[in-house]
Amino acid sequence: MKEKLYIIKIGGNIIDDGAKLSSFLRSFSLINEKKILVHGGGKLATKLAERLGVEQQLVDGRRITDSETLKIVTMVYAGYINKNLVAGLQANHCNAIGLCGADGDSILAHKRQHPVMDYGFVGDVDAINTFLLKNLLDQNIAIVFAPITHDQQGQLLNTNADTIAQELAKAMSSGYEVSLIYSFEKSGVLLDANDDSTVIAEINPAYYQQLKSKQKIFAGMLPKLDNAFTALNSGVKKVIIGKAENLEQLVRGHSGTTIVNE
Amino acid sequence: MKEKLYIIKIGGNIIDDGAKLSSFLRSFSLINEKKILVHGGGKLATKLAERLGVEQQLVDGRRITDSETLKIVTMVYAGYINKNLVAGLQANHCNAIGLCGADGDSILAHKRQHPVMDYGFVGDVDAINTFLLKNLLDQNIAIVFAPITHDQQGQLLNTNADTIAQELAKAMSSGYEVSLIYSFEKSGVLLDANDDSTVIAEINPAYYQQLKSKQKIFAGMLPKLDNAFTALNSGVKKVIIGKAENLEQLVRGHSGTTIVNE
Repeated sequence: MKEKLYIIKIGGNIIDDGAKLSSFLRSFSLINEKKILVHGGGKLATKLAERLGVEQQLVDGRRITDSETLKIVTMVYAGYINKNLVAGLQANHCNAIGLCGADGDSILAHKRQHPVMDYGFVGDVDAINTFLLKNLLDQNIAIVFAPITHDQQGQLLNTNADTIAQELAKAMSSGYEVSLIYSFEKSGVLLDANDDSTVIAEINPAYYQQLKSKQKIFAGMLPKLDNAFTALNSGVKKVIIGKAENLEQLVRGHSGTTIVNE
Repeated sequence: MKEKLYIIKIGGNIIDDGAKLSSFLRSFSLINEKKILVHGGGKLATKLAERLGVEQQLVDGRRITDSETLKIVTMVYAGYINKNLVAGLQANHCNAIGLCGADGDSILAHKRQHPVMDYGFVGDVDAINTFLLKNLLDQNIAIVFAPITHDQQGQLLNTNADTIAQELAKAMSSGYEVSLIYSFEKSGVLLDANDDSTVIAEINPAYYQQLKSKQKIFAGMLPKLDNAFTALNSGVKKVIIGKAENLEQLVRGHSGTTIVNE
């Protein structure tokens, strides 16, 4: 039987909230199984860009990573946030190591090619170095990933943290029984987007089709769910979506929405 | 016989110079033996502090690390510089991992206590986790250290890069034959501070006393040399001081000043 591995994506709303973050790190530290934390950036990168007078370019609601923005996200994500998360875990007696994709060539990516748009220094993932990650996990070190990758040509690339969590989950499934947990501000996938008590406990492919055809699911949730099923089809054992504050219950499947393949 | 390990401290003047840095990273990548790179910050942290309007407090020529300054150095050292160095090494086919002292609890420190002065968030090193470092080196991964440590209570601390290089060298000497290389802007220890051709090839304790008593050595060099002898007394095989541009020759002892204990 494969060993369990939890891959947990933490949303920006927790990173921006000191009290919630402390509590989250405590809960994360209490997970006895192997674990990887993937974080995004919260509002810190935007705030720093504002203070530095670096304008954020958005095209169709998507942020363009120009060279100044890449510098800022590298500093904030891989520097400030990543190292403070690691120090916070160490304070909870959880040995952790903070990596970006360039470290140990752990996440190889290429600059996104698009026929029309230039997203700038945005990376799409090509490969995960599972050997290094397994070796660190075997030493009972939790891994904390900043959403920065590299192209092996010396270029760092800004990469979506949800995608990194998913790619890690898929790649690590060859050696582990992986649970992929997306923690965010809602309690899970909701039947009524405005009512946090309408969490759907479990979604399988048949029920998903039914919910979709009845347009019961908030449109913004659909890409997350599509990604979840893609992960499950690539060997991930389960995907759980729920509130970061409930991490301990999420891990046990007692909170949030569990997405399964059968 | 112990395996060789090179611990190389790179000065800010190289980090600030793109062409010199590229050349340095190429030379570093060509070192076949195990290797650790320790970097400082160059002018980037000062420039960022200026752009953000964070005043740098200096007391007796020493920078005070207040909380805003700590944030800046964490972003610049552990984020921007560290990750770009790692990506640059990967581009040279040198697998590398970038760490700060919080990562894997690799460098434990405490906030400096001083009877009169408060240096702010400055760390003095207590312990090095040689087990993790040896494990990474055994996988032929070069380690790149940013000069940030932690206190295991969740606090990151700004720590002098020369000191980190020295503490790493002392600690790693139990398992390796360590050469500690301080690269800076001069060609080595000079008899005439204004003439780069007056490099002293080798200094042993007797010659050092002689040079000191004749006041032949530039005062700014004395702490570096005192530290070098301390390192040698703690098991480090040799200390080499010289120009980063000459790294390949420094490694072979064909350039710079070699400090030995006999």
